[in-house]
Amino acid sequence: MRLAELSERSGVSTATIKYYLREGLLQPGRRVSATQAEYDDTHVRRLRLVRALIQLGKVPVATAREVIAAAEDESLDHHLRLGAATWALPAGPEADGDDPEVAAAGRTVTALLEHVGWRHDQELGELSPAYRTLVAAVAALRRLGYPCGVAHLLPYARLAAQLAVTDLDLIQEQPTEAGQIEAAVALTVLYEPVLLSLRRLAHSEESARRFMDTDGA
Amino acid sequence: MRLAELSERSGVSTATIKYYLREGLLQPGRRVSATQAEYDDTHVRRLRLVRALIQLGKVPVATAREVIAAAEDESLDHHLRLGAATWALPAGPEADGDDPEVAAAGRTVTALLEHVGWRHDQELGELSPAYRTLVAAVAALRRLGYPCGVAHLLPYARLAAQLAVTDLDLIQEQPTEAGQIEAAVALTVLYEPVLLSLRRLAHSEESARRFMDTDGA
Repeated sequence: MRLAELSERSGVSTATIKYYLREGLLQPGRRVSATQAEYDDTHVRRLRLVRALIQLGKVPVATAREVIAAAEDESLDHHLRLGAATWALPAGPEADGDDPEVAAAGRTVTALLEHVGWRHDQELGELSPAYRTLVAAVAALRRLGYPCGVAHLLPYARLAAQLAVTDLDLIQEQPTEAGQIEAAVALTVLYEPVLLSLRRLAHSEESARRFMDTDGA
Repeated sequence: MRLAELSERSGVSTATIKYYLREGLLQPGRRVSATQAEYDDTHVRRLRLVRALIQLGKVPVATAREVIAAAEDESLDHHLRLGAATWALPAGPEADGDDPEVAAAGRTVTALLEHVGWRHDQELGELSPAYRTLVAAVAALRRLGYPCGVAHLLPYARLAAQLAVTDLDLIQEQPTEAGQIEAAVALTVLYEPVLLSLRRLAHSEESARRFMDTDGA
């Protein structure tokens, strides 16, 4: 297909496609004349991944280029290729190393991972952006005097494990590996507001159930 | 207690306390001389709520003033007072009314709330910021061709309902109503990064379980 059709099928404008070509985010088409190139389904799929990273994930171009390289590196196994894509996504604020609560929060998180048996995450530890975000959030709770020991975090970790099974099932519905990597990025990003808004709606429902005057219902 | 002790006990600087007094976010102390006032535990608790709203929740001063008014309005029941505080918190991006996918997403969300029997949320509908954020997120998924029908959203809604029970139990550990309202704000804000980072850690763990070469483990 030509550039115009690639644009139509991918939903990405021709100007943006040309930008992605210049930046090396999209592999060049097969040149058919001095001014025209021919694209195929691999270009459509790549554009979906680039769009998921840059437009949804707000990942910088240089990071997107690294993610794509990792996603195509056949010396890495499937797990690492999925991981490279989602690790690049912005996570929450990270802990300030100087904060005295951070060391205590780090011990709580380590004990939590031990307790739920997430051995893989334990090994990665501070290498993982999600781990560092979790430590920062626990340190913030501690600083304000809110309960956030292993016992308090445990129900959240157990629910997260159930979510991960649902999420990975959805990702594995994609038939190709490239499709799975793209889905991992898009679903990580797009299901975060789904999850947070459902949690707030559920709060409202649960609060109504517990506290609402029955004559006001 | 004097201003200096109020600052120490609340962890809020004296300059910030004076600012909150000027803005009407903190009730004045009992005047004991031309230049000094006496504060008590109600001031310490109020400062915790103001800090939860403004510093953690990033709520504008005018909104914080409205929330505090609602939290103290004894004509409202406890459910509405909790709700007023958390509704003021910034939620995710909302849907653009011109988008053709938004109407379809709205129907999906309505069907979902019907299915899980969240009658209270159904009645509130578009009045609720979390409802509008959810519609926007579902519309984004539809636009990219990802599965997001009622069947796909249902496991997330069920997990959110379990989370809400855990969250409300934690909120009810606070002995006073003011403490519960403050905890609702702080825990809504502070447990969002906890939940999202645990979800990403659980992804990594579940992905390792499914895809990692056993000799690489």
